[in-house]
Amino acid sequence: MKIGIAGLGHVGCGLIELVERQQNLRLPGEVQITGVSARSQSRNRPVDISPYRWFDDAATLAEDPDVDVFVELMGGSDGPAKFAVETALKAGKHVVTANKALIAKHGMALARLAEEKQVDLLFEAAVAGGIPVVRVLRDSLAGTEVKRITGILNGTCNYLTTVMLEQGREYDDVLAEAQRLGYAEADPTLDVSGMDAAHKAAILSAIAFSADLDFSKVSVSGIDKVSLLDLRLADRLGYRIKLIAEGVLTDEGVVCRVEPLVLPASHPLARVNGSLNTVRIEGDPVGAITLTGPGAGAGPTASAVMGDVAKMFRPAIRPAFGRAAHHMGRPFVQGAPTEVAPFFLRVYLPDQPGALAALTEALAKEGVSVDKLLQESGEESGAAPVVIVTHRCPRSNMQAALERLEKIAKPIDAPRLIRIEAAS
Amino acid sequence: MKIGIAGLGHVGCGLIELVERQQNLRLPGEVQITGVSARSQSRNRPVDISPYRWFDDAATLAEDPDVDVFVELMGGSDGPAKFAVETALKAGKHVVTANKALIAKHGMALARLAEEKQVDLLFEAAVAGGIPVVRVLRDSLAGTEVKRITGILNGTCNYLTTVMLEQGREYDDVLAEAQRLGYAEADPTLDVSGMDAAHKAAILSAIAFSADLDFSKVSVSGIDKVSLLDLRLADRLGYRIKLIAEGVLTDEGVVCRVEPLVLPASHPLARVNGSLNTVRIEGDPVGAITLTGPGAGAGPTASAVMGDVAKMFRPAIRPAFGRAAHHMGRPFVQGAPTEVAPFFLRVYLPDQPGALAALTEALAKEGVSVDKLLQESGEESGAAPVVIVTHRCPRSNMQAALERLEKIAKPIDAPRLIRIEAAS
Repeated sequence: MKIGIAGLGHVGCGLIELVERQQNLRLPGEVQITGVSARSQSRNRPVDISPYRWFDDAATLAEDPDVDVFVELMGGSDGPAKFAVETALKAGKHVVTANKALIAKHGMALARLAEEKQVDLLFEAAVAGGIPVVRVLRDSLAGTEVKRITGILNGTCNYLTTVMLEQGREYDDVLAEAQRLGYAEADPTLDVSGMDAAHKAAILSAIAFSADLDFSKVSVSGIDKVSLLDLRLADRLGYRIKLIAEGVLTDEGVVCRVEPLVLPASHPLARVNGSLNTVRIEGDPVGAITLTGPGAGAGPTASAVMGDVAKMFRPAIRPAFGRAAHHMGRPFVQGAPTEVAPFFLRVYLPDQPGALAALTEALAKEGVSVDKLLQESGEESGAAPVVIVTHRCPRSNMQAALERLEKIAKPIDAPRLIRIEAAS
Repeated sequence: MKIGIAGLGHVGCGLIELVERQQNLRLPGEVQITGVSARSQSRNRPVDISPYRWFDDAATLAEDPDVDVFVELMGGSDGPAKFAVETALKAGKHVVTANKALIAKHGMALARLAEEKQVDLLFEAAVAGGIPVVRVLRDSLAGTEVKRITGILNGTCNYLTTVMLEQGREYDDVLAEAQRLGYAEADPTLDVSGMDAAHKAAILSAIAFSADLDFSKVSVSGIDKVSLLDLRLADRLGYRIKLIAEGVLTDEGVVCRVEPLVLPASHPLARVNGSLNTVRIEGDPVGAITLTGPGAGAGPTASAVMGDVAKMFRPAIRPAFGRAAHHMGRPFVQGAPTEVAPFFLRVYLPDQPGALAALTEALAKEGVSVDKLLQESGEESGAAPVVIVTHRCPRSNMQAALERLEKIAKPIDAPRLIRIEAAS
């Protein structure tokens, strides 16, 4: 499959890198880059673009006979991006785009054009970065009646409000820092005004409700008017304020809006912090499904673009496990018996002098270092429950320590040894 | 598309109901049920099966000339379910199944048979009920290198440990209640032993790592040995104990296991309570994606089966928004200006006698009932921040109350009025 890539920013370069190591992926065939285009050929980039044919003009690349799939990563709802996508579709090329503004504003017209030309127009990367919500809604949930979608669809806004509350800092201060760190754009208007989230919400609503996407009907209110005081007072009363995107089916039609909402702290969307995105889909008979992940960034977005490119191979029958049986070569193996991890150990010790010392000594002799220890009062049986959280050590050391303990002060009941998963 | 359904338990009946109201779904074409099969024809069921041709034998239905897609909802890794699925594939029928044990144990052989016959074998409903993780992994993430999958894949186990900790009750007690309420099977062995979660983890691992599924290599340890004491002591130290399914890529091959793990309370999997399922996929370059939802139940599982059936229509080109442009008829409309909801109101009141009374009076006059109120000390400016959480009322009443307030005691700064989303 021959692809042409227009737009060589972070995502475009991320995609080239991914194509170059495609043997590690699970693609149904080989992807070749036959041409690239961007505003400047000479700009310094993290990938070497010299192996690829250069096009000064994206639209020329879009209709090049050597391109099967045109990948648009230029951005902007109108101008060159729109013209290039239209050119590609008219030339009978499949299109993959990450351009949310383009799809939100001109998606229906482009979809009709693609339909007429019998080509694919895919835009997984346009909504929520690495979270594959477009295809989940479009294909996986085709057998469910979607009632409502809510989500946190702008990572910048969520990052700003999270940091404001956690660090007790005002909006302007946190925004300026985010700009310095590259977490927010030099011109953050599209993000903080709610417009970016609105683009994404409109696209999801059109898919979920088979609705005639009309972006002019979407109401948009941003995060820029929420102050630290609001966040702090809401927090004190057990709430969080988040910029929430919503699409809901009403008797009149689809209502789509983006606005700050107050959520109970226990609400699934309230607990999504930092720059994460999340989408909650409520439907009948599926109930509620929540997808959470990185909503932006070169890697996640390139992954989503590549997922769409993979779909273009369009085999008549997709192998049940994704790849043909002769490619399913990796073996299942039994987990290695020795693992290095922190461990949780619970024992019942006889409620008598020296029992606890025997335990800590057994651990020390095997080089196990204790992070936390909690002993509760002895129970009626005369046994006292003790729990220990260790620092990282091999499981075999834990087992050796338990064997030692058996000999010195036989614990009552079998000890419980459980691995502790790292925080993430 | 003509489907035959074998197995008419909760999920089978849920599917029939869904087919009967398919005009509300987003299917690419019409689904017809041409035959059904189950152990007993006369059993009392929530749907009327008399309109459909009855087959005493699932395998006969599987190869009936009037069936395009055979839907297997019988269960059991061997015996009639396996024979019927093999019969369907050999007869060149596509197969959709919700049978995790069958796919975990015989998935590779069945996939080879499907490949040979050039038919589809789909099993979205076999893993995590309504959560479309099979297709996300197989298709959407084909362009990402998966490194590790972790998840809570058995709702019964998660329900048991959640209730034990929350209500301070022992395992046997909570299990007996769950059985009475129908949340746990009469014979809960498959669930509490970890075997059910292991089936699902093995299937996901095979897809994620293109690995030769060998269920005999999966190590399984259940929740049945975790006591209330363990859960309680872990909680006191800031941890949760959950039955975690894991698939990880190592140098030797794929390690797949199910075991109780101790998780920091802040870990994304630690916060998934009750009967929910969740799957966390870590990959390069996508980062980490988490999918959460109902892991079982007639509705969610039937939704997943229907998603697979929808895929069988296999149009050469899938419309960009899921349905052809002429089906995208629902309008986008602007949200109604009056909404009924609880509201969050923040004002700065002048720090003087009567200001707070003016606010509460203005609210009372407009019939707005106060749920919570918090006033902080006045700031240097002489203004005191006040926040009010109301009970449900129309937005227009809030606005009228604010207009009243303007007249009596002009608040400093613009008041902030934000809708409160219901807990969920």
